[in-house]
Amino acid sequence: MTQLEAAKQGKITPEMERVAAREKRTPEFIREGVAAGRIVIPANKNHRGLDPLGIGAGLRTKVNANIGTSPRHLNAEQELVKLRTALDAGADAVMDLSTGGDLDALRKQTIAASHVPVGTVPIYQAAIEALKRHGSIVAMSADEIFQVIERHAADGVDFITVHCGVTRESVNRLRRQGRITDIVSRGGCFVLGWMLHHGAENPLYAQFDRLLEICRRYDVTLSLGDGLRPGCLADATDRAQVQELIILGELVDRARERGVQVMVEGPGHVPLDQVAANVQLQKSLCRDAPFYVLGPLVTDVAPGYDHIVSAVGGAVAAMAGADFLCYVTPAEHLGLPTAEDVREGVIAARIAGHAADIVKGVPGAREQDLAMARARKALDWEKQVALAIDPEKARRLRQQRNPAGIRECTMCGEFCAMRLVAEFLGTTRALC
Amino acid sequence: MTQLEAAKQGKITPEMERVAAREKRTPEFIREGVAAGRIVIPANKNHRGLDPLGIGAGLRTKVNANIGTSPRHLNAEQELVKLRTALDAGADAVMDLSTGGDLDALRKQTIAASHVPVGTVPIYQAAIEALKRHGSIVAMSADEIFQVIERHAADGVDFITVHCGVTRESVNRLRRQGRITDIVSRGGCFVLGWMLHHGAENPLYAQFDRLLEICRRYDVTLSLGDGLRPGCLADATDRAQVQELIILGELVDRARERGVQVMVEGPGHVPLDQVAANVQLQKSLCRDAPFYVLGPLVTDVAPGYDHIVSAVGGAVAAMAGADFLCYVTPAEHLGLPTAEDVREGVIAARIAGHAADIVKGVPGAREQDLAMARARKALDWEKQVALAIDPEKARRLRQQRNPAGIRECTMCGEFCAMRLVAEFLGTTRALC
Repeated sequence: MTQLEAAKQGKITPEMERVAAREKRTPEFIREGVAAGRIVIPANKNHRGLDPLGIGAGLRTKVNANIGTSPRHLNAEQELVKLRTALDAGADAVMDLSTGGDLDALRKQTIAASHVPVGTVPIYQAAIEALKRHGSIVAMSADEIFQVIERHAADGVDFITVHCGVTRESVNRLRRQGRITDIVSRGGCFVLGWMLHHGAENPLYAQFDRLLEICRRYDVTLSLGDGLRPGCLADATDRAQVQELIILGELVDRARERGVQVMVEGPGHVPLDQVAANVQLQKSLCRDAPFYVLGPLVTDVAPGYDHIVSAVGGAVAAMAGADFLCYVTPAEHLGLPTAEDVREGVIAARIAGHAADIVKGVPGAREQDLAMARARKALDWEKQVALAIDPEKARRLRQQRNPAGIRECTMCGEFCAMRLVAEFLGTTRALC
Repeated sequence: MTQLEAAKQGKITPEMERVAAREKRTPEFIREGVAAGRIVIPANKNHRGLDPLGIGAGLRTKVNANIGTSPRHLNAEQELVKLRTALDAGADAVMDLSTGGDLDALRKQTIAASHVPVGTVPIYQAAIEALKRHGSIVAMSADEIFQVIERHAADGVDFITVHCGVTRESVNRLRRQGRITDIVSRGGCFVLGWMLHHGAENPLYAQFDRLLEICRRYDVTLSLGDGLRPGCLADATDRAQVQELIILGELVDRARERGVQVMVEGPGHVPLDQVAANVQLQKSLCRDAPFYVLGPLVTDVAPGYDHIVSAVGGAVAAMAGADFLCYVTPAEHLGLPTAEDVREGVIAARIAGHAADIVKGVPGAREQDLAMARARKALDWEKQVALAIDPEKARRLRQQRNPAGIRECTMCGEFCAMRLVAEFLGTTRALC
C-alpha cells in the first residue's frame, strides 16, 4: 500500500507519524493532507535508512539539492563529498542527476548515503544507454525507458522527475508561438528528440498507466517535470508553459486515482511580478498538488550569483504557496557546481524557504527569529551563533572581524545601539 | 538655487539633463519629478567631479554602499580600498559612516574620490566630538550638532541622514508599546541619549528650519532617518515605527516648501508579507518622496548571509516602489565589512534592484535580460560575460569549471539542451 492509499483508507502510517513529529503537526493533519494529495511523503519501500519527509501545504518549505556527474566530470568520490556537503548544509532532499560514469553505481551510492529522500530523472540514463547501445541518445525504445524507471524504483529512489507533459499538443503550441530559448530542460529536450526521432507521442504520456503501475508498486512519488519551463524571463508564463501545466494537472488526477503520490514541477525563469501568479495557477490547475519550483530566477543577467537570484524568486514563490524549492548554485549557467557551490546553494534556498515559512505561519519559524532578536539585544553571541542558519559561518565571521574579542560587534564597537539604548532606558525611564 | 527650486520654476538644470540622459528619459520628465518631489538629485554645490544621479519614481533603482571606520578599525587606506571596491562593483552612491580616526579627513577623502553622491550621518561626528570635548557622547549642545552639519555641507556632502523623527511623541509611543530590540539605529540611539541627557526635544526636530537653511544653501538632500526602525521581525510595522513615519511625512512637506530636496529612510527588519505594505505606507504618508530602504531583511536568523536576506526584501520593496536600496553585506550583525564583503553586498543589492526594474518597466532593464537570453541560446559566452552583472566573476567561474574549454557548459556537456533542441528543431520541423 502507498502512503496515499493508506491515507485514503484512514490509516496513519509510521511515516506519517514521523512527519507529524518533525512538523509539530498532528498525525491526523498529515494523513488528511496526504489523502487529499496536498502533502506527499516520498518514501520508496526499498530506501533503507530513510527519515520520512513531508512536502506540501502547512509544512515547512523544503529544499532540494541537485548533485551528480556530467560526461566530463565523473568522479564518484567528488559527488559523495557534494552529497555530504548538501546534507550538512541542511538540504531536505537530493537528486542524483548524474550523466557520466557508472550511473547505476552512482545512484546506489547516493541512496545508501542519504537519510533524506532521493530523486532522479530516469530519462537521462535511458538516453545515455541509448547512445551506447544504439548510437543515438534518442534511439531507445519505450520499453527501454520503462526498464530504466523500474530499475530506479527497485533501487529505492523516492521520487522521479518524468516529463509527461511534453506532448504533441504542448510542443506544437510552443512552435506556433515561438520562443527565445525554446526548451532548456535537459529531460524535456531528450523527450522532444525521442518524439521527433520516432515520430510518435511521448511514451511517458501515452503509457502513463504503465508509469503509475511501477510507482504504485514501490511507492515512488511522481514529480511531473516541466519540460517546457521558460529558460528566460521573456518566455515566462507563455502558452507552451501553461499548456503543459494543464496536461500535468490532468495527470495529477490520474495518479491520485491510482494511489500514486504526485507533485508538480515549476519554472524556471520568471519576472518577479509573475511569480505569485505562477504558483496560484499551478495550485488551481493541479488541485493543490505540492509545487516543486526550480528557482524561480527573477533575472537572467546574474551568472555567478544565481543562488541569490533564486532566493528572491524562491522566497516569493514559497510565500505564495510553493512547497519545495530546488536550489540553484552560483555555478548555474556556467558549469557543474563544486562542493562549495552546493553549500552556498543550499543555504540560499533555506533562507528563501524560512523567510516564507515565517509568513506562512509554519510552526516554529517565527519563534526562531524571535529567539535570535532576543539574543541580539542581549549581545549573547553564543546563542546568536547557535540560532544562525549556518552557525559555522556566523562564528567564523564574528571571530575574523573581531580578533580583540570585544563584547559588541566591530561595526559600531563602543557606539553599539543595542548596548547604549539599554543603558539609556535603564537609567532614565521618563522622557520629559 | 537648489534643484528643487529650479524645477519648480520650470528650469531644466545641467544636472537634470545629465540624469535624463543616464535614465533614457526626457529632461522634462526629470524636471517634473524633481518639482513634485518624486525625484531627488543629491548634488551638493561643493562636490566637484560629481556625476549627477537621480533617485525616485520612474528611474532605475539605485544602490548605496556604506563604508567607514569604526573606533577600533580606523585605517583610512583600507576605507579607500572599500570605496573603490564599491564603485567598481557598481554602487550608485556611498555613505561615509566613519566613527574612528580623523573624521574630517576621512570624509574629504571619500568626497574627493567619489564621482557618485556621498552621504553622511553628521550626528555620529557630533557625538564623538562630544565624547572628547565633554566626556560623554550625548553632552554636545544643539549648536555643536548644527556646526557639524554645516561642516559636512560645506565639504560637499550630497545627502545627510538626520533622525528628525525621534521625538518625544514617537519615543513615548515606543515605550508604551514595548519592543524586543528597542532602537537599533546608531543615530537614533545618539538622539535618544541626547534627549534623555538634556531633558529636551530632539534639536533636529525642534530646530528643523535651521537644518533646512543649511541644506538649502548647499543643496544638500535630506535623508530623513528612521531612528525607530524595527531591529527584528517582531518589531516591524509597529506603532513607534509608523508614528515616526507620520512625523517624517510632515517634515517632507516643510522641506519641499523651503526648496530642500528630501527623501525618507525605511526599515529594517520586516516580514516578507509586510514589505510591500511598508512601501505603500511610506509613499502615502510622505507624498511620494523617494524611499531609501535598508534591506529590508526578511529573516533575523541568517548572519553571514544578510546580503541574500536583504536581496529578497530589497527586490520586493523595489517592486512595490522603493527607489534606493542601502546594501547589506555578509558581515552585517557580525562586524565591520571587508572589501570583499562590500563587493558581495553591492552585487546582491544590484540584483534586487534590477529584478524590480524589469517589472517596473525601467527603460533598458528588460532589454538586458533579453539580450542575455539570446546569448545563452547561441552559446555565445563572450556576450554572456559582457552582459553579466559581474562580468569578472562570470568569466572566472566559466573558466574554472571548464578547463578543457568545451563549447557547452560543464553542467550538461554534450547533453546541452540549448544545443540539442536547436539541432532537433532545425532538422525536423514537423511533429507528427
